[in-house]
Amino acid sequence: MALVSYVLNGKEKESRVGQEIAGKIKQIASELGYQPNHLAKSLRSGKTHTIGLIIADISNPFFANIARVVEDEAKRHGYTVIIGSSDENAEKSRDLLNVLINRQVDGFIIVSAEDSQEQVQYLKDKKIPFVLLDRYFPAIQTDFVSTNHYKAAYNAGVHLVKNGYKRIGMIAYDSQLFHMQERIRGYVEALTDNHIPFQEHWLKRVRISAIEQGVKAAIDEMMASEQPVDALIFATYSLAINGLKYINELRLNVPGDLAIVSFGQAEAFDLYYCPITYLKQPIGLLGQTAVELLVKKLKEPQAEPSQILMEAELIIRASSKTKSLVNN
Amino acid sequence: MALVSYVLNGKEKESRVGQEIAGKIKQIASELGYQPNHLAKSLRSGKTHTIGLIIADISNPFFANIARVVEDEAKRHGYTVIIGSSDENAEKSRDLLNVLINRQVDGFIIVSAEDSQEQVQYLKDKKIPFVLLDRYFPAIQTDFVSTNHYKAAYNAGVHLVKNGYKRIGMIAYDSQLFHMQERIRGYVEALTDNHIPFQEHWLKRVRISAIEQGVKAAIDEMMASEQPVDALIFATYSLAINGLKYINELRLNVPGDLAIVSFGQAEAFDLYYCPITYLKQPIGLLGQTAVELLVKKLKEPQAEPSQILMEAELIIRASSKTKSLVNN
Repeated sequence: MALVSYVLNGKEKESRVGQEIAGKIKQIASELGYQPNHLAKSLRSGKTHTIGLIIADISNPFFANIARVVEDEAKRHGYTVIIGSSDENAEKSRDLLNVLINRQVDGFIIVSAEDSQEQVQYLKDKKIPFVLLDRYFPAIQTDFVSTNHYKAAYNAGVHLVKNGYKRIGMIAYDSQLFHMQERIRGYVEALTDNHIPFQEHWLKRVRISAIEQGVKAAIDEMMASEQPVDALIFATYSLAINGLKYINELRLNVPGDLAIVSFGQAEAFDLYYCPITYLKQPIGLLGQTAVELLVKKLKEPQAEPSQILMEAELIIRASSKTKSLVNN
Repeated sequence: MALVSYVLNGKEKESRVGQEIAGKIKQIASELGYQPNHLAKSLRSGKTHTIGLIIADISNPFFANIARVVEDEAKRHGYTVIIGSSDENAEKSRDLLNVLINRQVDGFIIVSAEDSQEQVQYLKDKKIPFVLLDRYFPAIQTDFVSTNHYKAAYNAGVHLVKNGYKRIGMIAYDSQLFHMQERIRGYVEALTDNHIPFQEHWLKRVRISAIEQGVKAAIDEMMASEQPVDALIFATYSLAINGLKYINELRLNVPGDLAIVSFGQAEAFDLYYCPITYLKQPIGLLGQTAVELLVKKLKEPQAEPSQILMEAELIIRASSKTKSLVNN
């Protein structure tokens, strides 16, 4: 049947199959409203030069900025980026993957949502090229580039201990995602490694679907105890923004009443009355590397997965000032 | 040939054309690697149920939040949204439109980039359904939903005059886009209508490709004059963020040295030491209405364009406090 295929793709002299038969096949195909399957075609020709980028939440400036970097880098490589936002929702993530697979993207860069592990396994099984960005599943061998979330949280905890804080809390998401587990693990180990016995009520887990109320309740509980926390690590940008607004409402002084370190980064941290110490993830390098890994994957689908962890940098500012200096 | 088409789409009993012929046609189609043309199919069935959203800059929280609303609203209507960011660049916008047209979206919601008027005209000529969001071209009859940018800027200017400010500046983009012209016009008319003769050096236009340096130079010039401005309107969020950082660097007090009103909205304005007065655009309503107009357009392609202007709300906070109170 290869000969017939040639006819419709116009790659062979029609004489090889006979003009009459060729004409008939073309007529049938045309009358059926059929045209070459672009997916099959692009699999043969190599590329549609389009990348699908699935991010977890477009309204989070960390992901919005990552998207901007991915686009710039993809353009340098000759790719156009189509973006979908899963809003941290596995069902929406599945819809988007389906839509973009049907739209014949060459491959994906994905910031995975909660409970989307099966989708990643599916892509892997179907040999659809992808790179995970920022979040990955240790149980699945995939290409990924991510911040070392454990180390980042560990450094934040050690920094607060060294600056004299003794009751250090963390507000995190109630999530099974590995990066969140790693942030929690890093925080807990920073305390125990530095002779501060971790106390369960210092760690609050907030549901992602009810951040505002969750953060308020968490701070209320932490501050109401006889020995309120004197420092707080926010495990994400959204937790921090909600937390800082509530801390202002409560008229708590930062860092006098409560020192702050946060994940995420945003103009809001710079413009706060007491600039916020934060873990600066290498957004530019993360985005660039994700594109490079995907481009490499598209060229060499059989290559071993590349798995890259990058370090976050702790940007130390007034919100976590040495405790003895604050009280002066 | 309609009968044969039915066979492959599985909509007709095979007996009508004879099982043998039906089987043969299917076999040929399959061996050719052909599948139904989704575009042709969707043209007949109506929809692919996918919307392309082109935003001007994904890293601007105003657009990121609009994207989030459009997605939620589209999902309610049974549509999936694919996003592209033009980064305020007409060439990138054209690439994205092409990619998404080839990806067979049903229609577009577009926040237009500079110099993209021809693209809008092209979509209109080709009868590709679209709705313009936030920015529109008065010379082209299209569906659009936008803030009344003129009125918003006018209200900001009047508010500052009423609160006792006499030398009111504006930093805007050096852009031909209509919404920017309207913001400038509103600012100028607010002054002249209130007996403050507008002075050319109060209005600075910053190139979008060099915001940071442009804003610094603008503020330097405005403050260096013998009669420095005592209030400043930022015409966009990015201008404001860069401006506020520089105002902090210069250790200017807000509003004592300089009152501030800004377009755009973001957590940064809430968390600034002196909360920023801003023009709150109805993001939720803008996004919802854009989706509704597009859905309507898809159902009735021949209907007259809907053109909707919405009012921004001036959220008054400490950064534009009555001047006599500031000096006490």
